[in-house]
Amino acid sequence: MTPADILLANRLAEAAGHAIRPFFRAAYSHEAKADASPVTEADRAAESAIRHILDAECPRDTIIGEEYGEKTGSSGRSWIIDPIDGTVSFMAGRPIFGTLIALLEDGWPVLGVIDQCISGERWVGAAGYPTTLNGNPVTTRACTALNQATLATTGPQYFSQHDGDHFMELAAQTAHKKMLFGGDCYNYALLATGHIDIVVEAGLKLHDFAALIPIVTGAGGMMSDWSGEPLHGASDGHIIAVGDPARLDDVLEALACQH
Amino acid sequence: MTPADILLANRLAEAAGHAIRPFFRAAYSHEAKADASPVTEADRAAESAIRHILDAECPRDTIIGEEYGEKTGSSGRSWIIDPIDGTVSFMAGRPIFGTLIALLEDGWPVLGVIDQCISGERWVGAAGYPTTLNGNPVTTRACTALNQATLATTGPQYFSQHDGDHFMELAAQTAHKKMLFGGDCYNYALLATGHIDIVVEAGLKLHDFAALIPIVTGAGGMMSDWSGEPLHGASDGHIIAVGDPARLDDVLEALACQH
Repeated sequence: MTPADILLANRLAEAAGHAIRPFFRAAYSHEAKADASPVTEADRAAESAIRHILDAECPRDTIIGEEYGEKTGSSGRSWIIDPIDGTVSFMAGRPIFGTLIALLEDGWPVLGVIDQCISGERWVGAAGYPTTLNGNPVTTRACTALNQATLATTGPQYFSQHDGDHFMELAAQTAHKKMLFGGDCYNYALLATGHIDIVVEAGLKLHDFAALIPIVTGAGGMMSDWSGEPLHGASDGHIIAVGDPARLDDVLEALACQH
Repeated sequence: MTPADILLANRLAEAAGHAIRPFFRAAYSHEAKADASPVTEADRAAESAIRHILDAECPRDTIIGEEYGEKTGSSGRSWIIDPIDGTVSFMAGRPIFGTLIALLEDGWPVLGVIDQCISGERWVGAAGYPTTLNGNPVTTRACTALNQATLATTGPQYFSQHDGDHFMELAAQTAHKKMLFGGDCYNYALLATGHIDIVVEAGLKLHDFAALIPIVTGAGGMMSDWSGEPLHGASDGHIIAVGDPARLDDVLEALACQH
């Protein structure tokens, strides 16, 4: 990963935003995918715009996109794309969905972008650099105790009954009057900017979380799975992000409570 | 209610936004209220800004604000103010909270404003006028069946166990892969703009829902309590908004399911 890759990732986000904006709160075709989750013309146009640039400029890199699958390369580098994370939020006209772009080297995410193309906010995390929001460094905030923590998750419907029970054990120990639902990738962006303390989710795929890792860690936070293990391509999609790494053990302990 | 009141309501929203914006994602004092919900310096500054104008220009009107209580007037008109609806969302840095301003005449809401001062979006509903977003008329959308409907609610933690069970009965009959959590007043604004079909909540107070009524109805939608009764000052805070009035009976029936 070089500074040129950071510039390229910014151009990819720019292209995706250009593709998405005309569809926001406008007419577009949409359908249900095999798992019944929705996909729109905007998701596809944004991923196509990104792949068009990568195909031309990085022909040897692997590309894995949510909508158009995998193109295997030979460089040891992989671009992971979620053209619209929060498609449901996008379809409802909420300006808090995001385009996620990650670069993996030897399986490890070294570069991540969360781009909100309506509000014009772009978070970039890159190994060896501080995380930025529109070019300005951002950091997570300290959180002295779990009962002070603002916890966020996209929705209870994304947990199995079992996972939901464990999540509720955690929620009961946080500042639950400040608990936030909805938000998708935007929650992690706000955590990296010091406004949310903990995000816990389940059922995420690599394209949902790869880009978040450099952004959260580059802002001083930490991510892991529900066992405290670092996230990688084969992680099972149970995700924890904490702004203050000192709270990770508390979160793990709360989530592991027996019923 | 006259066109001058609409202009005044716009000026009130302008003043509130001016008071709120410096605090967004910045440092401010905050504390827990008696019900443990948070209130910030921004909530208070915004309500003060609104009351300052009303005290000077409408000295005989009643003012009821979330943060500074009631000042009883003699004109038969009441201004109902929620300076920041979605304080939790505001504190987390999400640009989807809103300032709510309503004018009641003889107890009936005849004018409502939802103002999002970060994105610069203002919805205005007034009896006898079409609802507008930044001056442009908006309308709800048709919804042919419950299983096609996008349902939104701010969070499961705002329901009692009993209400939550009824809500889940409804949720199961909607397009649940498109169900949205979070959002506060912004969900009703998006319903009035044709991007969400149903919003159902419980535990709302007059300052949470008064402004929504002229906005939703002026866009072609309908609001009621969970029994189908029109909303008024003594409503119990169980709220339904539907974009397509033809779906109200379906929602009522689904919510009334026995357990």
